[in-house]
Amino acid sequence: MKIRPVKGTRDFYPPQMAIRNFIIDGWKKASLRNGFEEYDGPIFEYLKMFQIKSGDEIVEQLFSLQDRGGRDLALRPEITPTLARMVNQQINSLPKPIKWFSVPRLFRAERPQKGRLREFFQWNIDIIGVERYFADAEIIFTTVDYLRNVGLTANDVRVRISSRKLLAAVLKGFGIPDDKLDALYVILDKKAKLPSDTFEKMLAEHVPNRETLNRILTFMSVDSLPELQELIDADSDEFLAYLEVKETLAMLGIMGVGDYCVFDPSIVRGLAYYTGVVFEVHEAGGELRAVCGGGRYDNLLRDFGGPPISATGMGMGDCVLGILLEEKGLLGKSIPEKELDFFVAFADKSGGGTVYKIVAELRSRGRSAAFSYKTSAGLSKLLKEASAQNAKKCIIVGQEYKDNKLAVKDMATGEQELVDVDEFLSSLGSG
Amino acid sequence: MKIRPVKGTRDFYPPQMAIRNFIIDGWKKASLRNGFEEYDGPIFEYLKMFQIKSGDEIVEQLFSLQDRGGRDLALRPEITPTLARMVNQQINSLPKPIKWFSVPRLFRAERPQKGRLREFFQWNIDIIGVERYFADAEIIFTTVDYLRNVGLTANDVRVRISSRKLLAAVLKGFGIPDDKLDALYVILDKKAKLPSDTFEKMLAEHVPNRETLNRILTFMSVDSLPELQELIDADSDEFLAYLEVKETLAMLGIMGVGDYCVFDPSIVRGLAYYTGVVFEVHEAGGELRAVCGGGRYDNLLRDFGGPPISATGMGMGDCVLGILLEEKGLLGKSIPEKELDFFVAFADKSGGGTVYKIVAELRSRGRSAAFSYKTSAGLSKLLKEASAQNAKKCIIVGQEYKDNKLAVKDMATGEQELVDVDEFLSSLGSG
Repeated sequence: MKIRPVKGTRDFYPPQMAIRNFIIDGWKKASLRNGFEEYDGPIFEYLKMFQIKSGDEIVEQLFSLQDRGGRDLALRPEITPTLARMVNQQINSLPKPIKWFSVPRLFRAERPQKGRLREFFQWNIDIIGVERYFADAEIIFTTVDYLRNVGLTANDVRVRISSRKLLAAVLKGFGIPDDKLDALYVILDKKAKLPSDTFEKMLAEHVPNRETLNRILTFMSVDSLPELQELIDADSDEFLAYLEVKETLAMLGIMGVGDYCVFDPSIVRGLAYYTGVVFEVHEAGGELRAVCGGGRYDNLLRDFGGPPISATGMGMGDCVLGILLEEKGLLGKSIPEKELDFFVAFADKSGGGTVYKIVAELRSRGRSAAFSYKTSAGLSKLLKEASAQNAKKCIIVGQEYKDNKLAVKDMATGEQELVDVDEFLSSLGSG
Repeated sequence: MKIRPVKGTRDFYPPQMAIRNFIIDGWKKASLRNGFEEYDGPIFEYLKMFQIKSGDEIVEQLFSLQDRGGRDLALRPEITPTLARMVNQQINSLPKPIKWFSVPRLFRAERPQKGRLREFFQWNIDIIGVERYFADAEIIFTTVDYLRNVGLTANDVRVRISSRKLLAAVLKGFGIPDDKLDALYVILDKKAKLPSDTFEKMLAEHVPNRETLNRILTFMSVDSLPELQELIDADSDEFLAYLEVKETLAMLGIMGVGDYCVFDPSIVRGLAYYTGVVFEVHEAGGELRAVCGGGRYDNLLRDFGGPPISATGMGMGDCVLGILLEEKGLLGKSIPEKELDFFVAFADKSGGGTVYKIVAELRSRGRSAAFSYKTSAGLSKLLKEASAQNAKKCIIVGQEYKDNKLAVKDMATGEQELVDVDEFLSSLGSG
C-alpha cells in the first residue's frame, strides 16, 4: 500500500523543518522587538464567519467540514476574522492600543502553484485602536525590520505604499459614484499583473468615459509625492489622504528605512475592507508575487459586531518569502540541521553503564548529548558517529574513569584533554 | 452579528499563548538536548491513511473533508501515520537510527471533556531502527527529563512500565489463542478506569474459564519485577520479555530517574499496534487521565508499505499536562506575558521625531522597544505607560539631546542616569 501526501501540502523533514523554524523564529523575534504580543486562534471556525469580511466568493477557496452536529465549519484561510472575533469578545478588558502578532497555519482549497500552496504559514501583525499614521508606519517598519534583519537590502525588496482613502477621494473627484468603487478596486489591483492593453480594456468596461479613464491611468502612474501634490487641491479630501501618506513615509525615513519605501498609487489591494494606507512588498526584480501586503481597515471590527475601532496590519506568507530567500542565497549555510553539544563514547565496551550516566548528567545540565545504540562499535566507529551527528565535543569513557577522569575531545580541532568528572560537570552549571 | 468560537477549540489571547509557548518550548528543548531532530507533516492527509493503523472505528473520531476533486481527506488525529509515511518515503536515504520529534496540532471530532479537546497539541518523540531496550529507555528518559525539568517530582508523577510482548507471552501461556489477543488488550487496558467488578464482568465475557481469568488478574496485580520473576519460567518467552523490561528499568536507574519509574503489568495501551515495552505517565494522585503514553511498535512501518523496521515512541498532549502544571502551581508566575527592554518617551512634545529614531536604533540592535501613540501625553503619563508595558528601562528624550545625551531610567530601581547617545547605542552591540 503506497500512501502519498495530499498535493499542495508539505512534508517537513529535518532540513525543511530547520528552514521553517528559521523563518518563523525570525518573524517572532521581529514582532517581539517591535513590541507586539503573540496570540492565536483555532484552526477551524464557523464557515459563516469567513463570509462576513470576504463575501460568498471566498467560500469556494475554503476547505469546509462539519462537526458531528452537522454545523458548517471551515479551515481558516486567514486569521484577521479570528482576530476581529477575539478582540470584540474582550473589547472592554483589553488594554489599548492592541499590538498583536501571530504566525498561523492557513489553508486554501486552490490549485497549488509556485509560491501558492494549500497549506502555508503567514506572519500577521496588527495594531488596533490607533487612528493616526504612527500605527501604519510601525506596521511597515516592523515588516522592513524583519526583511532587513534576514539580509534583504533596499536593492532586493521595495515597499510600495499608497492609500485607499486617497484613491477613493481621487476616483470620487473624477465623478465615480460611491457604489462603483469596490468593483473598481478589484480591477485597479490587477494593473501590475496584466498586460497594459488587457488592463485598459477591463477598466473601460467599468469606466466608459474615455477622459475619466485617462485621468485614472495618469493618477496611477504618478511616481512621487511631489508629482501627486501638483495634481490635487490643497483644500480637498485628496489632500488629507495625501498628508497621511506623506507623514507615514516621513516617519519611515526618520526610522532609517526610507530607502526601502516608495509611494506607488498603483497599489490598491483587492479586498474591499481597506480604508487608508495600503502597501505591498515586492522583490525589486518584480518576478515573484508580492512578498507581503497590508494596510488600514478601520471598519472591520464593527462589521464583526464590535465597536467602530480603527486597525492596521500586515500579512506575510512563508512560500514566496522562502523562494526569495533561497534565490538570494539567504537560506542554507546559516541554518544548522542538527547540533549536538556532546557525544559520549566508551573506549572499551565495559563502559556502557557509565556512558548512560554521563549522558543523563549532561542533559540534566541543559546540554544536548547522545550516545551510540551500536553496543559492539569500537572507538573509531563511535568517533565517526559523533562526527556524523555534528557533535562539538566527544567525551570518551576509558580506563581513567576508575580515577574519576574522562577524556574530552574537541571535534573541530581534534584536541583532547583529560578532565576530572566532578569538576567538569560542575563547570557546566545546573542547566 | 455575534460570532462564537467552535466548542472544544481554544482562543489563545496573549496570557494563554504565553502558557502554550512555555509548554511547547519546554518540549522542544527537552527533545533537542536528548538528541532528537524536529519534523512535521501536513495538517490533513488522505482519510484512508488513518484507517491503516487504527481501523474503521477511528473514522468516527475524525474531522473529514474533501478537496475540490472530491477526494476524502481528514484532519490528523495523531502524527504517527504521517511519520510512518514520511520515513517510508525516504527509507533508503535517511541515516539510521532516526531520532525525531514533533509538536503537531491534532484534531478529534469528539465531544469535548476536561483534558480532552477537539483541537490540541501533542509532543511526539520516536526512535526508528533500534531493536534493543536502549531506545525504549531513551524515550522514557526524555519524557521524564521534560517532566522533571518543568518541576514535577517523583512524588507528583509516576511512569508505569510494562511490555506488550510480556503480556502476550503470559496470555498465550494461559492458553489464550493468538487471534483473541487484540480484543483482550482493549479490555485489559480498561482495568484502572473501571470499578473492579465491572472490569471482571467484561473480562469474563472474553475469558469464560474462571481459573484462566484468575490467573490473568493475578498477573495484572503483580507490583514488582522480583514478584514477576517468581511467576515465570527461566526458559520461556515470558522470561525474554521480562528481561527487556528489567534492562529498561535498570538503564533508567543508571540515568538517575529510577525513582520516577515502576513496573506495572496493568499498563496495556488500547491500540493494537504495540509490540514491546509500553508505558504511561500518571499523576501520582491518579485523578487525571494519563499525562502521556507510548511504547514499541515494531510492525507499523511495514504496515504502511515500508520495510520491517523497529520503532518506539511517546505522545504527550498539552491539555492534561496543562491542568497538572496548573494544579501543582508550576504555571503562572514563571511565565512573562510581556517584556520590553526599552520604552522611549519625550520630556517635551518637540522630541517626537527623535523618539522614533531612537526606537528604530534600539530595534535594529535586537532590543525590544516601544513608544507611546498618545502624542499629547506628558512625561508622567508616559512613564505609567512604560510601566504598564513591563519595560525594564525608560529612555527619556529631553533638552539634553541637543548635547547628544539621553536620560535612562531603570524602571525597577527608579534610578536615572544621563548617557551619551552614541556611547550608549554602541554599548548595545549590533544585535
